[in-house]
Amino acid sequence: DRRAIIRRSGDINIIMTNLNKRRSRYLQDIYTTLVDMRWRWTLLVFFMAFMICWLAFGFIYYIILKIHGDDIEQTDPDYQPCLMNVRSFTGAFLYSIETQHTIGYGYRYTTEECPQAIIVMCLQSIVGIMIQAFMVGVVFAKLTRPKKRSNTILFSRIATISLRNSKLCLIFRVADMRKSFIIGATVKAELVRKFETLEGEVIPYYQSELKIATEGGSDSLFFMWPLNIVHVIDDKSPFYNMSAIDIMNQDFELVVYLEGTAESTGTSMQARCSYLPANILWGHRFINIIDYSYQTENYEVDFSRFNTTEEIPTPLCSAKNLEEYNSQS
Amino acid sequence: DRRAIIRRSGDINIIMTNLNKRRSRYLQDIYTTLVDMRWRWTLLVFFMAFMICWLAFGFIYYIILKIHGDDIEQTDPDYQPCLMNVRSFTGAFLYSIETQHTIGYGYRYTTEECPQAIIVMCLQSIVGIMIQAFMVGVVFAKLTRPKKRSNTILFSRIATISLRNSKLCLIFRVADMRKSFIIGATVKAELVRKFETLEGEVIPYYQSELKIATEGGSDSLFFMWPLNIVHVIDDKSPFYNMSAIDIMNQDFELVVYLEGTAESTGTSMQARCSYLPANILWGHRFINIIDYSYQTENYEVDFSRFNTTEEIPTPLCSAKNLEEYNSQS
Amino acid sequence: DRRAIIRRSGDINIIMTNLNKRRSRYLQDIYTTLVDMRWRWTLLVFFMAFMICWLAFGFIYYIILKIHGDDIEQTDPDYQPCLMNVRSFTGAFLYSIETQHTIGYGYRYTTEECPQAIIVMCLQSIVGIMIQAFMVGVVFAKLTRPKKRSNTILFSRIATISLRNSKLCLIFRVADMRKSFIIGATVKAELVRKFETLEGEVIPYYQSELKIATEGGSDSLFFMWPLNIVHVIDDKSPFYNMSAIDIMNQDFELVVYLEGTAESTGTSMQARCSYLPANILWGHRFINIIDYSYQTENYEVDFSRFNTTEEIPTPLCSAKNLEEYNSQS
Amino acid sequence: DRRAIIRRSGDINIIMTNLNKRRSRYLQDIYTTLVDMRWRWTLLVFFMAFMICWLAFGFIYYIILKIHGDDIEQTDPDYQPCLMNVRSFTGAFLYSIETQHTIGYGYRYTTEECPQAIIVMCLQSIVGIMIQAFMVGVVFAKLTRPKKRSNTILFSRIATISLRNSKLCLIFRVADMRKSFIIGATVKAELVRKFETLEGEVIPYYQSELKIATEGGSDSLFFMWPLNIVHVIDDKSPFYNMSAIDIMNQDFELVVYLEGTAESTGTSMQARCSYLPANILWGHRFINIIDYSYQTENYEVDFSRFNTTEEIPTPLCSAKNLEEYNSQS
Ligand SMILES: [K+]
Ligand SMILES: [K+]
Ligand SMILES: [K+]
Ligand SMILES: [K+]
Ligand SMILES: [K+]
Repeated sequence: DRRAIIRRSGDINIIMTNLNKRRSRYLQDIYTTLVDMRWRWTLLVFFMAFMICWLAFGFIYYIILKIHGDDIEQTDPDYQPCLMNVRSFTGAFLYSIETQHTIGYGYRYTTEECPQAIIVMCLQSIVGIMIQAFMVGVVFAKLTRPKKRSNTILFSRIATISLRNSKLCLIFRVADMRKSFIIGATVKAELVRKFETLEGEVIPYYQSELKIATEGGSDSLFFMWPLNIVHVIDDKSPFYNMSAIDIMNQDFELVVYLEGTAESTGTSMQARCSYLPANILWGHRFINIIDYSYQTENYEVDFSRFNTTEEIPTPLCSAKNLEEYNSQS
Repeated sequence: DRRAIIRRSGDINIIMTNLNKRRSRYLQDIYTTLVDMRWRWTLLVFFMAFMICWLAFGFIYYIILKIHGDDIEQTDPDYQPCLMNVRSFTGAFLYSIETQHTIGYGYRYTTEECPQAIIVMCLQSIVGIMIQAFMVGVVFAKLTRPKKRSNTILFSRIATISLRNSKLCLIFRVADMRKSFIIGATVKAELVRKFETLEGEVIPYYQSELKIATEGGSDSLFFMWPLNIVHVIDDKSPFYNMSAIDIMNQDFELVVYLEGTAESTGTSMQARCSYLPANILWGHRFINIIDYSYQTENYEVDFSRFNTTEEIPTPLCSAKNLEEYNSQS
Repeated sequence: DRRAIIRRSGDINIIMTNLNKRRSRYLQDIYTTLVDMRWRWTLLVFFMAFMICWLAFGFIYYIILKIHGDDIEQTDPDYQPCLMNVRSFTGAFLYSIETQHTIGYGYRYTTEECPQAIIVMCLQSIVGIMIQAFMVGVVFAKLTRPKKRSNTILFSRIATISLRNSKLCLIFRVADMRKSFIIGATVKAELVRKFETLEGEVIPYYQSELKIATEGGSDSLFFMWPLNIVHVIDDKSPFYNMSAIDIMNQDFELVVYLEGTAESTGTSMQARCSYLPANILWGHRFINIIDYSYQTENYEVDFSRFNTTEEIPTPLCSAKNLEEYNSQS
Repeated sequence: DRRAIIRRSGDINIIMTNLNKRRSRYLQDIYTTLVDMRWRWTLLVFFMAFMICWLAFGFIYYIILKIHGDDIEQTDPDYQPCLMNVRSFTGAFLYSIETQHTIGYGYRYTTEECPQAIIVMCLQSIVGIMIQAFMVGVVFAKLTRPKKRSNTILFSRIATISLRNSKLCLIFRVADMRKSFIIGATVKAELVRKFETLEGEVIPYYQSELKIATEGGSDSLFFMWPLNIVHVIDDKSPFYNMSAIDIMNQDFELVVYLEGTAESTGTSMQARCSYLPANILWGHRFINIIDYSYQTENYEVDFSRFNTTEEIPTPLCSAKNLEEYNSQS
């Protein structure tokens, strides 16, 4: 019945309330704010920013031509307007966007007549690059942001507890669906549960780190194929005193996350997943999914069996009781 | 009365004097210099750079048309100028900006007459991309630089000292106001105070690292909600011999900083804060601010209580005296 | 006869089968998918994207001019079309690309007549920047991606086993062909082989980390010239019980990888290599390739001898037997 | 008389000889090759690349107009050329650069007559963005590359050896001339010297890591002002057996390097320096350069005293002899 902190998608099920400095601090970092927004709002902000800029410069050009008297039809054949073929605000707006966006059709253009029009044209050219640089950066970050890369990282739907060389171990599986690498990949695990100190302080969502490693004992991952990540349930583990029944009755959430750099794009990324007690299968172990095919002369990873487990005989008592029992034998 | 090294904003209260190589080394790395500048100076530098470039090429075109004789009105109907409709320096300047900025209205354009005009046009096109690349890079870095992201990292205004499982602990709180993550987040703490060696050397601002961790003992942060960062005052801690009174009378500054990578933008960032003795409340502890709302089916973080503490009974003696007392009991 | 996991090129010899969510997850991260693609498919995707966009806006302009009646020849001399000199779909398409790509020849241009044509022109201008930003990002990532930098990292073709200060050591060599640095370089090694647990579980491709260091004992590399990387075969090493004959008859693959950041471009990179039993030469050691030349006043690295070894007297027994023998002497 | 590995500038005094795969591997990573080049060669490569591209497309347009017969003067008033006002190769070249660089003056433009001309124009537009993306990336990387940021990192010209709490310590100083930070800064040190193994192997340039820390014992730097970096000469130190005279007669080079991420620009950087025996002053210690000014209410760092030391009484014997002497007392 209780909702997980991490959804299956990897999103965090948390909202923040009563944040009064939010607006001002979000505006101080407008860039990250725009990157974090929904696409429709980012597009709207950019559309408004460009329109306002084009209109503002258009208005300035309109004032210049008004002052010079270009809006009135001239009879003098040698008359030189500031801006050729610009006589109304609409024309000034069109000249503004044609200049700033560098389209420059050429029906409307600057003459040598007015220094102020030339200066404003220079200023608009520079301002145009800056707005474009900012927008390109936001679009680029939104399209490439690391969260997207984590869509192709898979965590197993379940974790298992079984014996590994006489020790009870909690194991889950992680894989990368792409052929390109995650560089400097590390996996971490945090157990979130209620905790009470000796002084009587109740910490309702206490985070404690679980010591995990790959099967071979490494805490950094050479992530070339799916890996089983192992937590040995020793006397320092929060699961040390728990039996199979105890775990089912516990109220905790095991949050796991993988961090690294995507080789293709060079961006840092984080993929998240969590396991509730119901996701932990006591007395199961993952089956192997890596085989060498002499036919294709390739190692083949069979993802259809990524979440498949098999039952094995496993004592249902706690790791602590198991060690006591073994030491008596 | 003494000013902190780190201001409330996170800025460092330090100036550097008598730096004679400063100018030359700053120019060797003009890019970072421009990124570090105030916006008004960066804009001025760019305006000047573009103007000078446009003027320089304009001058070159002017020389070309002067040599060719295009500034004199020609009667020959078959006469071909190097640059159509460019007869003055103003026209050459306009042609220069229209070409480099790729507006190209078309009133002024290159004819097939002069190879040197075509070559200079090619050169200006390439130079234009380079100047623009540099400017876009500086604008992008200034708008996206990591310092901006750290505006939405909150440190608690105070730190507390209280008992946690029979040990005196110094605790402060850190939070991220955004929903997007800081990846690879680590928090470090340095105690800055006067120190005298056995040989009599006085080091007035001696930095020693404080060993800190999250409540659950992890030194890397899964920063999905506000975290309490704990320093256990054990026999290796610089606070081991200090009582509540002693701490008030000390002259030190506890500098804390958080480093990581912003998930949205992929940039490395650092957020800084410091605590003076007056910011440390003995016998207080932070209240919990994370609750699950069955109404909204969300975890809710109440930031209005971010800095709220409650008093709890805490011995006022040093951690050392407390351990001695406990061992006698 | 068995194929290596890592090819000589550093590519991974692994394929993934039965991945049903592949298509949807690849589309969710279209950016990385395009970066990982072969060049010809990326170019085709972009060509299609631009063509479709240009055609779509061209179609919109065509509808606008159709509604306004601009496709019919007009006799009224004061008649103003929405788009000058655009009367057919081909003309509308040309106007579309000339506007979005900002070429703007000017034969076709917007008049002040139709607000909707001006609005669509504004929209197309913004959409044009976004598509271009995305494409530039993908091209940039594809051209600069870190895998390319790893082409200039060299691993020795062989590894050697010989005595170093009375201990059997496994040594391989790594070098950087460029003068610019790899920052934060680390080398890791994983031994991949079959493993059977006490419970009878067979793990066919079990990864265990090998503890390695530079000759002087550092696990981070100051990578200014070729380095010998050393694995001391002590009682914790998987090679501890293996003699020269045993190693030849083993079925394993020693995967090594170097990770760091390219100084020139600031991108993270990973270079990979592996050693099969046949690549390990017992009783050999690498010759020195670094000399100081008084003639040129430079340190010279002679890469022609990068893989050269010399034989030295080395016991053929296991490290374990060697230690037992030494302790008896 | 012997030249250092690291010059005062931080450059590495190493050349590589007999690298036969160099050319092909450098071409496989053309991007890093262009970034590593001298500016004049990079500019030449780009100029040639653009010229060749403009000429190639110009030649294609010329073929198109030749086939269509546009190079011949036409009498038919309704005659439509493929490209207006393009009749020669020079005109085709001008049309090519005006199109690819998006200047589009408009004297030369595409008509609706020839689909192949329109197709080539579309292709050139896309190719133009790609070449520009690559060039912008190289220019950006060359202008922003991390080596430039390391120009404002200062290492002291000398290192000192003196007593710190009864232990001989080797100390050098490092500082950042900019107000903006180096994030995640770490300092490492490697001692390079000749080494002979028990088996008689002579390693002429053996690298061993020196264990260093800030004064307070931290191995990561909160780099807000100049820091003294300390190597305690204990029994694990290569200097343990050396007296003041011994050090002067040694042939070694102590290479130190700082790695981190520049806060302003988000780029990884490495700054390098080295100390030869002549650079190490026994019996000296650095004076303090950080003071608080009540006048300006700022901490002031006086860089004019950055390299200043004072003599202090220091035993000239080795650390080993000193410890033996102390244990006897
Ligand atoms: K244009
Ligand atoms: K144009
Ligand atoms: K034009
Ligand atoms: K343009
Ligand atoms: K025109």
